[in-house]
Amino acid sequence: MTAPDARYQARGVSAGKAEVHAAIADQDAGLFPGAFCKILPDLLTADPDACVLMHADGAGTKSSLAYLAWMEGLGESVWAGIAQDSLVMNLDDCGCVGALGPFLISNTIGRNAKRIPGTVIKGIIDGYTRLCDQLNDEGIACHMTGGETADVGDLVRTVIADSTIFARLRRAQVVDAGRMAPGDVIVSFSSTGQARWEDQPNSGMGSNGLTSARHDALGADYRAKYPETYAPETDASLVYCGPHAVADALPGDPAFTVGGALLSPTRTYLPLIKALLDELPVNDVHGLIHCSGGGQAKIGKFGAVRDGRGNRYVKDALLPVPPLFTMLREASGTSWQEAYTVWNMGARLEAIVPADKADICLAVAKDCAIEAVISGRVEQADGPKHEVVISTEQGTFRY
Amino acid sequence: MTAPDARYQARGVSAGKAEVHAAIADQDAGLFPGAFCKILPDLLTADPDACVLMHADGAGTKSSLAYLAWMEGLGESVWAGIAQDSLVMNLDDCGCVGALGPFLISNTIGRNAKRIPGTVIKGIIDGYTRLCDQLNDEGIACHMTGGETADVGDLVRTVIADSTIFARLRRAQVVDAGRMAPGDVIVSFSSTGQARWEDQPNSGMGSNGLTSARHDALGADYRAKYPETYAPETDASLVYCGPHAVADALPGDPAFTVGGALLSPTRTYLPLIKALLDELPVNDVHGLIHCSGGGQAKIGKFGAVRDGRGNRYVKDALLPVPPLFTMLREASGTSWQEAYTVWNMGARLEAIVPADKADICLAVAKDCAIEAVISGRVEQADGPKHEVVISTEQGTFRY
Repeated sequence: MTAPDARYQARGVSAGKAEVHAAIADQDAGLFPGAFCKILPDLLTADPDACVLMHADGAGTKSSLAYLAWMEGLGESVWAGIAQDSLVMNLDDCGCVGALGPFLISNTIGRNAKRIPGTVIKGIIDGYTRLCDQLNDEGIACHMTGGETADVGDLVRTVIADSTIFARLRRAQVVDAGRMAPGDVIVSFSSTGQARWEDQPNSGMGSNGLTSARHDALGADYRAKYPETYAPETDASLVYCGPHAVADALPGDPAFTVGGALLSPTRTYLPLIKALLDELPVNDVHGLIHCSGGGQAKIGKFGAVRDGRGNRYVKDALLPVPPLFTMLREASGTSWQEAYTVWNMGARLEAIVPADKADICLAVAKDCAIEAVISGRVEQADGPKHEVVISTEQGTFRY
Repeated sequence: MTAPDARYQARGVSAGKAEVHAAIADQDAGLFPGAFCKILPDLLTADPDACVLMHADGAGTKSSLAYLAWMEGLGESVWAGIAQDSLVMNLDDCGCVGALGPFLISNTIGRNAKRIPGTVIKGIIDGYTRLCDQLNDEGIACHMTGGETADVGDLVRTVIADSTIFARLRRAQVVDAGRMAPGDVIVSFSSTGQARWEDQPNSGMGSNGLTSARHDALGADYRAKYPETYAPETDASLVYCGPHAVADALPGDPAFTVGGALLSPTRTYLPLIKALLDELPVNDVHGLIHCSGGGQAKIGKFGAVRDGRGNRYVKDALLPVPPLFTMLREASGTSWQEAYTVWNMGARLEAIVPADKADICLAVAKDCAIEAVISGRVEQADGPKHEVVISTEQGTFRY
């Protein structure tokens, strides 16, 4: 993985999170050290066949953009989107280890009451409920257990929305990405389009890379107009230094506004994962990777080292880059090399399966109305380190 | 409950949280609607004798004060204190329904990386681990499951530390505050002194009322020096408008500095609750109340209405008000009436038990080196609403 771009660091966001990883270096890796999420023994009932996971994530700075768009008149629905972002960043991580509910969900919302009225809190909480209802209808049980909403204007500029999920599953049901091995193929599932369970098209956005996306895409009059939406310590030349207003048409896809594309609620792939695990024995699902922070290079963090040699993940047939990411890459002057580590670039989920199981993945995706391709394969690396190689018309990028 | 003071509202903090309660009005109340925390059926294993709870809370704006004190040279240990605050506000809530572990704990930290280096994150995470180790030694199993640390400087001015806890317990083990009834006595447990499991004396502070406490106690040169520690929307006359520097001796107890007293890590009462439930059958523990937000008036939110009549909680023999709260009350000009709803005023836990069981509570407290008194009793109210009556030398205050 290359060092994060200086521009990214200058905004106080470390994609690599080296400091955070150092701080938690002493914590144990759980029952399945190779799995996408940390999995613990069933500490509640001590059932040796069961395991549990507890997972936290949030909408990140996407809520700062939601606030700006809401102030600009994009409507109250942005807040339900933030709830979905906060929850899906979590749920889809859990899905990648094979957890498909029941999920017990708690949310933590911190607000600046001087900026964020109760109607916004209600919009966010209703958004959580709506997504849970949708997933319940898909046979994925989600229970909102409650949460905490705190008035912390001395800490939070606008509003922050995090969630924490608890799940219990059979150990035999765990998808362990440590099983990804040379010979497997990689199936990538589009982050765009309109899945069977969605009521509007998705731009492809998740809830990561938003600090960069927001400042590089949006224009300078927001800098003076909404100082509450960014860290005042950031160099002004990096704040809202892009070409667009939120209401501008998205270049390349005028069905979206720029603001609408950036705020497009993060797709949940859980119904697709559920269908996949209904069709394939878990032993044939060698890995499910949620391409969130780290983007298309994220897979390089996972895999076992066999006989001193890691995996080389070669992706040379990725889906086309959606207009949103083209706009973001161009507006920010991000290199292609880096772009694949910041955004999902068109596919936020990938399945790593034996070659003869790829067709089943493609058929499941079709049923879900989600575009999918065999984007690549797993090879043996020369040394012990996992490698990611992305080959496109623009060049070959190694991580 | 009287309306929160305008001063409190003007700082963007609503002690009554009316807006939040309106936003979650539709959510169900759980298995034990009268219990201190929401308790759900065991949705994981469907065991009819078990139940679960998931609970979220955090250190609130205490972390803003920790930042200021850290900048002023009070040392790195303030960060372990913030972890303890975040965790104890949660754990002690759970203890009040009889949950004594195993606890599964996740934390969510949001930071402004321009202000908060990795050493601070490590200090907070180590603080979580240290408290868990301590509680494990007391026979209260705590497992850190992981968490999320996000660089969100566009949302967070300094650092915010929240945690979420999951626990499972037998339904027969639940302390249900709905059972508090006329004839019971109230035993209050001091929030000051040094409990058996503590390595330093406690000022009595919890992690609520901190926005008010910080601005009313601390002096004006911090306003210009640390603009990152408060909401710029707040009227300047309410920001750091107090008489003290963090290093000043606490009036009335020079063993503490003002900063040290405000940052005194929130005491956990869990070992005391454990001892209490070891000594008394759960049916004799009619209620355990964590006097956090709402202070001494919080108990008024709990209790059953019988024959159209609620409970009247009369406390006329409370422990003396610790020097910290005297300082805060005086510095802020808070009325006595309100002070009892903002701070714990000397006791952050109370047990409501049949009169003949009070001696056992007092003996348990003595073993824990925590001062305790029979502070009052439960009477029958005249109408269906619960009432709280606090009688002191300064007057009688009704809520």
